[in-house]
Amino acid sequence: MKGIRQLAEHLAISIGTVSRALNGKPDVNEETRRRVLAAAEALGYVANQSGRSLRQGETRVIGLMIESSAEAVENADNFFLGVTSGLQSVFARHKLDLVMLPCPSDEDPHEYLKRMVARRIVDAMIISNTQRIDRRIGFLSRAEIPFVAVGRSLSASNSRWIDLDFEGVADRAVERLVARGHRRIAITAPLSEVNLGYVFVESYRRALERHGIRFDPSLVIRVKSSEQGGYQAAHELLLLPDRPTAIILIYELMAIGLYRRLMESGVMPGRDLAVIGFRDAPRARFLQPSLSCFRMSLYDLGIALGQMLLAHMPAYRVLYPNAGRNIIWPLELVSGESDAFEVGRGDKEFASEHWSK
Amino acid sequence: MKGIRQLAEHLAISIGTVSRALNGKPDVNEETRRRVLAAAEALGYVANQSGRSLRQGETRVIGLMIESSAEAVENADNFFLGVTSGLQSVFARHKLDLVMLPCPSDEDPHEYLKRMVARRIVDAMIISNTQRIDRRIGFLSRAEIPFVAVGRSLSASNSRWIDLDFEGVADRAVERLVARGHRRIAITAPLSEVNLGYVFVESYRRALERHGIRFDPSLVIRVKSSEQGGYQAAHELLLLPDRPTAIILIYELMAIGLYRRLMESGVMPGRDLAVIGFRDAPRARFLQPSLSCFRMSLYDLGIALGQMLLAHMPAYRVLYPNAGRNIIWPLELVSGESDAFEVGRGDKEFASEHWSK
Repeated sequence: MKGIRQLAEHLAISIGTVSRALNGKPDVNEETRRRVLAAAEALGYVANQSGRSLRQGETRVIGLMIESSAEAVENADNFFLGVTSGLQSVFARHKLDLVMLPCPSDEDPHEYLKRMVARRIVDAMIISNTQRIDRRIGFLSRAEIPFVAVGRSLSASNSRWIDLDFEGVADRAVERLVARGHRRIAITAPLSEVNLGYVFVESYRRALERHGIRFDPSLVIRVKSSEQGGYQAAHELLLLPDRPTAIILIYELMAIGLYRRLMESGVMPGRDLAVIGFRDAPRARFLQPSLSCFRMSLYDLGIALGQMLLAHMPAYRVLYPNAGRNIIWPLELVSGESDAFEVGRGDKEFASEHWSK
Repeated sequence: MKGIRQLAEHLAISIGTVSRALNGKPDVNEETRRRVLAAAEALGYVANQSGRSLRQGETRVIGLMIESSAEAVENADNFFLGVTSGLQSVFARHKLDLVMLPCPSDEDPHEYLKRMVARRIVDAMIISNTQRIDRRIGFLSRAEIPFVAVGRSLSASNSRWIDLDFEGVADRAVERLVARGHRRIAITAPLSEVNLGYVFVESYRRALERHGIRFDPSLVIRVKSSEQGGYQAAHELLLLPDRPTAIILIYELMAIGLYRRLMESGVMPGRDLAVIGFRDAPRARFLQPSLSCFRMSLYDLGIALGQMLLAHMPAYRVLYPNAGRNIIWPLELVSGESDAFEVGRGDKEFASEHWSK
């Protein structure tokens, strides 16, 4: 990589002149400017925009930490690639760049984050996949690195986050199923300590209680957040002694595996069992019968995340006076055929008969 | 962010002692070490591992440049997330980290790359989506930044790349279709200047000629590399005057849109038209009838890419003496039902009849 010094030596003119030519200053004659720019291109001159050692540790780069486990990859629905475009549309206005930091699956996320911060390549961070207790939050606070989290956490007392409206999803799903006569409603939950699992199950419990239905822990089916997890969930549901008539899923791709396992047993979603999926996902759009689920704009979420982060960076705070507050991000119900099955109109008998085979 | 100086001041002990305690040197007593580590944690001490201004511009970070257009996101099948795990397994051995650099869709990739290099956050680069003429390659060469490309390019005379075996895919697909009696074989190609489009069409042309079939440019259907592009390809194919009896796809998700458009017209893949897809993709695995396509391991591709890059970095070259050569990455045929349709056994009449409706 050639710098300004090598360029000046090559051209046998002063560093000052080279600098003025490169920066488009008016006091350089046209011929010199042309020579400088041609040499810069030919020699592979790279302006040093890092300047970290000179200024206040500024890199003008924002990091987005994501997971890169084999499971996340096989199952990922590009959630964060979708969010990226929205983030970039905000950062571009301020000439900030976004880089994605994929934490390897065999590494502790807290240790990974510490190392990436030590590498001093980012000015601020967006973290995701927040755990119920998440040491990254305390670390970033103490290190005084501006950050926002995708997902709440018990550790997030003073920090900022945007989280999906798991309460709203659980409420709407339970309400819709109860209106169709369901009382035995199962739910899936993640095996991990990811915080959203706690929020989702608690919201479901409260929604049931509002409808006078007692919470039954045996109806909380804990599986991996993946297609395979959906398959496993269906398997466990089919083995339950007093089988539920409905199930609510927590992860978008679970529906694919769940459908497969149900159909292997001759149980048709929407006819024999009501299914409500989580987020609308391109891969799940081809399911037959079509899946009732929830929709949101990843692009808009990216914009809100970007604005919230800037609202917590000293240099940009004043530009985003209203973007500093935590947000519960709404999802909109997309009505499909998978929860058409109603209980108490003769269907229940059909379903029970079917299952007792 | 607190550094070692602030830590020493806070503890009122020398910087040397703090440094020895943090680095686990034996000449520090246990009590002092404990105090230092506790203060480091409490104050948010961050080791400065960047050291770019002190050493030779080393960041120990490798950049992987990807595209982040809305279309790439909606359609992406996590190709690069899949490659990431393999790359990281190689880089981790040398304590190198990988960051992903998503180039916004409205930005010129060459300008984006120049800016990211100027930010001095990476020691080496992996670029993808190589164009037929790709200015990034000359830029990185002149700037003396080690790099490898996913995809060949006319610009890549002296640089290193790994590319998928488009020739092999075109050969196998044409051979298989010709053996089943097909002579009118259509192919899809990208609208963009991405180099793989040229390689794929040229390979198809040569494969046809080996079987004595004249290349007909009207059978090259240029569409976007997306689900929507597949839908459009089927639409154009159905309008062709002397309709082809088979089609070969260049992009994994095209099959989904193609199936949809064909079925809307009552044309069943595998029965009325032979279809051979490109890469096996999780989203396309649910197609009925099952898709004949090609399989490869993204993880293994990541390992090979990582090793090739290290073989071109001065500090690691000696460790990877055999990883420096360009690679054409093989894909394995996965036989499905989508190309079961044979011509010349009565089926052709059926198909023609069907289409003339």
